[in-house]
Amino acid sequence: MRACAMRDHKLVVDTLPDPEPQDGQVLVKTLACGICGSDLHMLKHADHMIEVGRRSGQGDGMDLTRDVVMGHEFCAEIVDFGPNTTRTLKPGTRVCSMPITIGAQGMGAVGYSNDFPGGYGELMVLNEMMLLEVPNGLSTERAALTEPMAVGYHAVEKGQLTGDEVPIVIGCGPVGLAVIAALKLKGIGPIIATDFSPMRRTLAEQMGADITLNPADHSPYQKWEEIAVPAGVDLSNPLALMMSDAQIKPCVVFECVGVPGLLQQVLEGTPRNARVVVVGVCMEADRIEPIFGINKELNLQFVLGYTPEEFATTLQNIAEGRTNVDPLITGKIGVEEVPGAFEELASPERHAKILVEPWR
Amino acid sequence: MRACAMRDHKLVVDTLPDPEPQDGQVLVKTLACGICGSDLHMLKHADHMIEVGRRSGQGDGMDLTRDVVMGHEFCAEIVDFGPNTTRTLKPGTRVCSMPITIGAQGMGAVGYSNDFPGGYGELMVLNEMMLLEVPNGLSTERAALTEPMAVGYHAVEKGQLTGDEVPIVIGCGPVGLAVIAALKLKGIGPIIATDFSPMRRTLAEQMGADITLNPADHSPYQKWEEIAVPAGVDLSNPLALMMSDAQIKPCVVFECVGVPGLLQQVLEGTPRNARVVVVGVCMEADRIEPIFGINKELNLQFVLGYTPEEFATTLQNIAEGRTNVDPLITGKIGVEEVPGAFEELASPERHAKILVEPWR
Repeated sequence: MRACAMRDHKLVVDTLPDPEPQDGQVLVKTLACGICGSDLHMLKHADHMIEVGRRSGQGDGMDLTRDVVMGHEFCAEIVDFGPNTTRTLKPGTRVCSMPITIGAQGMGAVGYSNDFPGGYGELMVLNEMMLLEVPNGLSTERAALTEPMAVGYHAVEKGQLTGDEVPIVIGCGPVGLAVIAALKLKGIGPIIATDFSPMRRTLAEQMGADITLNPADHSPYQKWEEIAVPAGVDLSNPLALMMSDAQIKPCVVFECVGVPGLLQQVLEGTPRNARVVVVGVCMEADRIEPIFGINKELNLQFVLGYTPEEFATTLQNIAEGRTNVDPLITGKIGVEEVPGAFEELASPERHAKILVEPWR
Repeated sequence: MRACAMRDHKLVVDTLPDPEPQDGQVLVKTLACGICGSDLHMLKHADHMIEVGRRSGQGDGMDLTRDVVMGHEFCAEIVDFGPNTTRTLKPGTRVCSMPITIGAQGMGAVGYSNDFPGGYGELMVLNEMMLLEVPNGLSTERAALTEPMAVGYHAVEKGQLTGDEVPIVIGCGPVGLAVIAALKLKGIGPIIATDFSPMRRTLAEQMGADITLNPADHSPYQKWEEIAVPAGVDLSNPLALMMSDAQIKPCVVFECVGVPGLLQQVLEGTPRNARVVVVGVCMEADRIEPIFGINKELNLQFVLGYTPEEFATTLQNIAEGRTNVDPLITGKIGVEEVPGAFEELASPERHAKILVEPWR
């Protein structure tokens, strides 16, 4: 098959052996696969990411002396079946799946594995039991957005919002945009979203943000205070606050950037008693001053991925029009163009989500 | 009055002017006041603590060119009243109070203020509305433990335990011991407690810890797994865990040490989905690797102090024998001996809580 592989820390387009479905697995044709920021990061920092993944309990990771075909945000079509499959869904059926597979080698991450090529190639093998049929009428490109949208949906679920929060979304890349969509879906708002990029702020509005700010000019925490705190309430007096019955709308911050220094900025900026949902994946060591968390009694919830139920719900939400993913899709390319797209995604002004269509 | 004051970053015992009660305030005689680890830290790092406090929203702090009489864990006796007081409690009544006072200068922290001397002196002024009468029959020394025990009670409240957790308490100084007592009160256990000091491990057992470990020899997380995870469940496989209905008792870690590096140790050690309640007060910058929090979807709840209700409940719990504080009290001294006691408290083998009795 034609595929774009990571080889010697570079992306190369080559003809690779077709993957073969094992017990319980299905061979699928990749119809569309989004390029994820994690893949850009992996290309640049693969050794470090594998080492950190191993130390933090993610498993052994990949052998970088062998090819890795990345791509874990996909919609595909069933082509063939391995042994011991029920074949309930017929060849030609369009499917989504969490990018996780179980094979003879144990559990594998589709797109971050030597054995399970991802969606930057023409063919993949997936576990039959993980397949979700794309509902009739839902376009392939929208279905391919299920994975990144599920990340945002999960983050909001983990935030355990009760409905009266005023949320702040820091960073409007695909992860932040998915969080905004999930907040909108739950009717929580007004949603305050920040990004340095004008294009991303526009996307944030299209996805449902009520207020967008350039953090170079305006503090989202100041904006939160204007909206959430009744006039005359002095936030700087904890005892008075404790003893008053002023109705302050809780502050929940979704940190969707994931670079060193950001977390400390959030700890310094947030009001007392805020909840911080850490969705951005910071792979480096970071410096924080815990006393800010302590003095404000902050809560940090780190999140990752989604549950099978959340993934399935997200596909349904897209199919039934409750979640509009169209603004996110800013480009479609063939497999030969993947290396160039990785370069292009470095600029936040040009793209949100580029879909790879390896059959082109 | 005789008092031990912080002057030029040293402790000196001297005769200072008696404080005078202002509007709504009461003059009290200090009967007993515990020495808190925060006071040891303040003596060593006052400039840094004030600067960090100011940056993190604690207010302007103290003027170190003037005397500060520390001591915020006290039981006292009413001596006289300022203007505009109701005088409901009579002179001679024994009282406890949150160490917070409101005066002409605004809100003050009793024991961390130039204007409101703390319990290392013979006299203090307190707000009448904050006074809690010591229930008849409760000894003064036990009542003086209300403040530190309230810290542990609050930490456990903020942990939002549902009852089936297996908690781990890291560090068995007074804060850790107060957490253990609060967990015991709620019937949560078995309680796993760790400390390098044999004396503190013994205290932990007296306060209600079910299992005590020296972290140099045994991992509390390994012990948690033995107790909390059914046989045959593989914690390293998140997907299998997600899809199984294995009943794993949640892990809640109470970090009661508060030194740099400890938080990262906890992030590395805890199992997936653990909650970490950060009770130890780390005043320095700290280094963490957020990816450990992310890959395990950890929750960090920073906590500080207590609510007025929690403070009052703690006094009641001690008075009614539900919380036994006697093992904590390891020494009683006069005001002249405070400087020496600060030295002695540096060794964990000798003392838990030393009470200052300035009338001696």
